[in-house]
Amino acid sequence: MKILAFESSAVSAAVALIEDKKLVAQSFQNCGLTHSRTLLPMAESLLAGCGVPLSAVDAFAVAAGPGSFTGLRIGVATVKGLAFPSDTPCVGVSTLEAMAYNLEGFSEEICCVMDARAGQVYNARFRWQHNHLYRLCEDRAIRLDELAAEIASTPQIVIGDGADLCYTKLNSICPGLHLAPPHLRFASAYGVAMAALPVLQQGQGINAQTLDARYLRPPYVTQKH
Amino acid sequence: MKILAFESSAVSAAVALIEDKKLVAQSFQNCGLTHSRTLLPMAESLLAGCGVPLSAVDAFAVAAGPGSFTGLRIGVATVKGLAFPSDTPCVGVSTLEAMAYNLEGFSEEICCVMDARAGQVYNARFRWQHNHLYRLCEDRAIRLDELAAEIASTPQIVIGDGADLCYTKLNSICPGLHLAPPHLRFASAYGVAMAALPVLQQGQGINAQTLDARYLRPPYVTQKH
Repeated sequence: MKILAFESSAVSAAVALIEDKKLVAQSFQNCGLTHSRTLLPMAESLLAGCGVPLSAVDAFAVAAGPGSFTGLRIGVATVKGLAFPSDTPCVGVSTLEAMAYNLEGFSEEICCVMDARAGQVYNARFRWQHNHLYRLCEDRAIRLDELAAEIASTPQIVIGDGADLCYTKLNSICPGLHLAPPHLRFASAYGVAMAALPVLQQGQGINAQTLDARYLRPPYVTQKH
Repeated sequence: MKILAFESSAVSAAVALIEDKKLVAQSFQNCGLTHSRTLLPMAESLLAGCGVPLSAVDAFAVAAGPGSFTGLRIGVATVKGLAFPSDTPCVGVSTLEAMAYNLEGFSEEICCVMDARAGQVYNARFRWQHNHLYRLCEDRAIRLDELAAEIASTPQIVIGDGADLCYTKLNSICPGLHLAPPHLRFASAYGVAMAALPVLQQGQGINAQTLDARYLRPPYVTQKH
């Protein structure tokens, strides 16, 4: 099964193609350009480079949230546009779960953190055991002091675009924290594909119309009715 | 300092752009197509996607060996061609050292293994300690039984395109072996750039004419003189 996966929930953007569990190709950019400009050309180059036509893609996956409102919207809209004409199945996965796939092979707890502004972070915690990723709590928006009280001194690898913030603020009261290696610290499209794989294998892909972003908080700016 | 790095020493191909120690962009392909077809378009798309002109690249890095004779030749020739017109500095790094950068953050010894055919593997061993990569032996071509005698039961993460072969053959006599996670198991262009960075910082880049592949063994096929 060929899955084309998109990650645009924060400042970096990434596209990956997996076939079953094999990473066939991946492109990653963290150069500050808007995802609406970079994401689709990255996917096009990636498929062309592999000689894989869009019609050979069996499913699309996207990091559906939490994350930047605009970033998630661009990722979800891209996948909707690609999947709709051929009615190809789609999966929206947790951005936090997807990034935990970066840290397969590490034995410590994984603390995924994205900057949610307003004194909060988006967070979930995971652990790899016997080649399986276990979720330790649901995705949530949480204040850093609440998160600190929860993790106390348990060893944790901190990952995500809020990792530096979390490490800097909590390092003195949570002595078990350490940062994920720099090249694994950001969300990956490979993780999005891997998180989508079991969902698709269970036949639980959805159609393009149903796919949507999953915000954990309402947007700041809303339309007047 | 912007470094554009190339990795084409085995079946996968990759290009990465780093700025100082930040991974700005990376593209990876493992789809069986020849590197002579994929490598340059990957670099072109990557730079275009980041809005970085070739003239803004401060140095080029390439995995210079060990590895596939043809793969290394394509990588080195690509970098020579890009660097020559502007006399941009180049660095050829050890393919084995570059892949050890994938495993930053792991505490076990790292056993880098590429299939060298003829009953041998290309191998070197490394260890990460205090955010620094230490080399435990020189790059060499070695028989698997000799490698097994050397590592005995010391815990090792095995990485590289020979990792599966090494693990399968030695697992029963070297109980400390385990495989690197699948998404980190292959050579990375990020690692090539990171291995080149200290060389360039010390002003030890070389020119395009001097850059060459570093084979550990003579090729099977040679011209008659």
